[in-house]
Amino acid sequence: GRAHGLPRWKSSGNARDDFLAVCKELTAELVAEVETCQPPLPSSVASHIARLVEYNVPKGKLNRGLTVVEAMEAIKGHAAPEQQWRAAALGWCIEWLQAYFLVADDIMDASETRRGQVCWYKVEDIGMNAINDGILLEMHIYSILRRHFREDPLYVPLMELFHEVTLQTAVGQLLDLTTADPDKVDFSRFCMATYTNIVVYKTAFYTFYLPIACAMLLSGYRDPALFAKAREICVLMGEYFQVQDDYLDCYGDPAKIGKVGTDIRDNKCSWLINTCLAVATPAQKKDLEANYARNDARCEAKVRQIFSECGVKEAFHEYEEATAAQLRALIAEVQGMPPTIFSTLLSRIYKRQK
Amino acid sequence: GRAHGLPRWKSSGNARDDFLAVCKELTAELVAEVETCQPPLPSSVASHIARLVEYNVPKGKLNRGLTVVEAMEAIKGHAAPEQQWRAAALGWCIEWLQAYFLVADDIMDASETRRGQVCWYKVEDIGMNAINDGILLEMHIYSILRRHFREDPLYVPLMELFHEVTLQTAVGQLLDLTTADPDKVDFSRFCMATYTNIVVYKTAFYTFYLPIACAMLLSGYRDPALFAKAREICVLMGEYFQVQDDYLDCYGDPAKIGKVGTDIRDNKCSWLINTCLAVATPAQKKDLEANYARNDARCEAKVRQIFSECGVKEAFHEYEEATAAQLRALIAEVQGMPPTIFSTLLSRIYKRQK
Ligand SMILES: [Mg+2]
Ligand SMILES: [Mg+2]
Ligand SMILES: [Mg+2]
Ligand SMILES: [Mg+2]
Ligand SMILES: [Mg+2]
Ligand SMILES: [Mg+2]
Repeated sequence: GRAHGLPRWKSSGNARDDFLAVCKELTAELVAEVETCQPPLPSSVASHIARLVEYNVPKGKLNRGLTVVEAMEAIKGHAAPEQQWRAAALGWCIEWLQAYFLVADDIMDASETRRGQVCWYKVEDIGMNAINDGILLEMHIYSILRRHFREDPLYVPLMELFHEVTLQTAVGQLLDLTTADPDKVDFSRFCMATYTNIVVYKTAFYTFYLPIACAMLLSGYRDPALFAKAREICVLMGEYFQVQDDYLDCYGDPAKIGKVGTDIRDNKCSWLINTCLAVATPAQKKDLEANYARNDARCEAKVRQIFSECGVKEAFHEYEEATAAQLRALIAEVQGMPPTIFSTLLSRIYKRQK
Repeated sequence: GRAHGLPRWKSSGNARDDFLAVCKELTAELVAEVETCQPPLPSSVASHIARLVEYNVPKGKLNRGLTVVEAMEAIKGHAAPEQQWRAAALGWCIEWLQAYFLVADDIMDASETRRGQVCWYKVEDIGMNAINDGILLEMHIYSILRRHFREDPLYVPLMELFHEVTLQTAVGQLLDLTTADPDKVDFSRFCMATYTNIVVYKTAFYTFYLPIACAMLLSGYRDPALFAKAREICVLMGEYFQVQDDYLDCYGDPAKIGKVGTDIRDNKCSWLINTCLAVATPAQKKDLEANYARNDARCEAKVRQIFSECGVKEAFHEYEEATAAQLRALIAEVQGMPPTIFSTLLSRIYKRQK
């Protein structure tokens, strides 16, 4: 394993390219591991695993994974190559976890495409075998941790962290799946508290807390109070991030966000509909019920009109300012670690357009 | 957690009842854990988890879980209650792992029933959410290990063992799913080496090696050579067990095995068809191709006739004697641990009728 060899790794000067190079190495290690299994396996297993990983893992924006590398730099300054490599490997563990959840989520949501390509379960020879492929992706996380962190006191905290966050994310999926009926409009199931709960469990833990906690562990932090503080900030930041996502789905520039939003047509329990419902008159609620979740341009326009009447856009801008202020206050309280870990993250998402 | 409390546990004198009582406690702990999550979750999450576990985990024959308890007794004699409780908890981790794989397998195989009840994904309000429920079941394993083994030097070896066996089982599923096309008869995909590979990875590791390795770890064994020897015996025993399963599907007494076999109609890559194909004439192969995997009594009878012409039944009896002899020889070589761990297992399956 790498942990025992000399670091072959040299920075190319481009963080994303460096990060992708580590994925190549990790994939090669996982394939080699399968090739040395006892009893021996047919070569089709190794080639399937290479294909599964290449199709599903290094395909997104890589924000989560890169955050580990960047947060480590924020803490340690310029770290030694071996340490940078290990941060990247942990970043990839998060990308692997995300791939696992996305493969499963696309089946459960009956989605067609993901990241500009056909969903894995929609690939011709894959189908429902994608469920088992998810299990393989998940176990790769622990193969990577074992290979690169086994001799390190970090090994147990890292495994526990990934177990914990996997469970939290699955609980978030459960909440989401049992709140939104994809077919029926039933606003009685929606409320802002449920919305926040779903967002925190389904997204915030693995998107914000997990990369920060990985970087903190790698940098030698162990004090539970520091992790609790990081968790508090990351949970709020994750909520803020998803509220922005919902806002951009409706009011963002499709050229910038790379898609035309469909939350209104898709019956999404979004921040916008929850905000609107909280102030809508009975007549407006009736109109929302009649026009939400229809695949029809005039219905969508009607919903947008009621959003406008209810001041949803303005409510978002107020929320954005209030939340950013709250996050700055929380970050200002941080002691015992560099607040830049969090302020860098915040500055990247504050008033984001995409 | 239990590891820190006084053992509340008292044997009822019935191993199965004792074992089921531990499941009740573990389930209550997992539910309580969800109820104390931060931020707080709606009570629907706790009740869903209780229902998920009760429907899927304590429903089978419990052979795998009980094997941990029995193997520990074979090693240690009558163990202290606390130690027996921990053996049972590990046994339940195996039953949880099996539940996870069965929930996923039934979706992938489009099955209707499992263990005398409707498959979980076929339950009205569950559907594809069953995929996410599988993730919850899997993470319960690590919640149980953390609660009851965190302070124990066993903690890391146990987590690694469950990770390893989960990966092996998923590899076995992958082999199985890519070998058997449920619709098309294509004997060119079948061969005995592939059959053995599938059986070892998909069944033997988690059914035989995992419970024995748990009992060995719990009893203080650490020598890798002992685990390698256990693995060798368990892999062969797992293969033997599945060959018996295939034999009983065709030649067993339905009243004893509790079902009418359907492997011939279901296009299964079974030991019988592989044995038959190895000796069949071209004419017999043609007849097999025309009659295998049809939902038709006359076709099935024709396949059985060719099995008979090719001496498949006799080949099984030869295989059974040769394999039992081989297992006895391997068990006789065992040094450094009581061979009864394995001979008890063997005596329970040798010439089994159900
Ligand atoms: Mg989705
Ligand atoms: Mg979804
Ligand atoms: Mg969105
Ligand atoms: Mg099946
Ligand atoms: Mg199957
Ligand atoms: Mg069978």
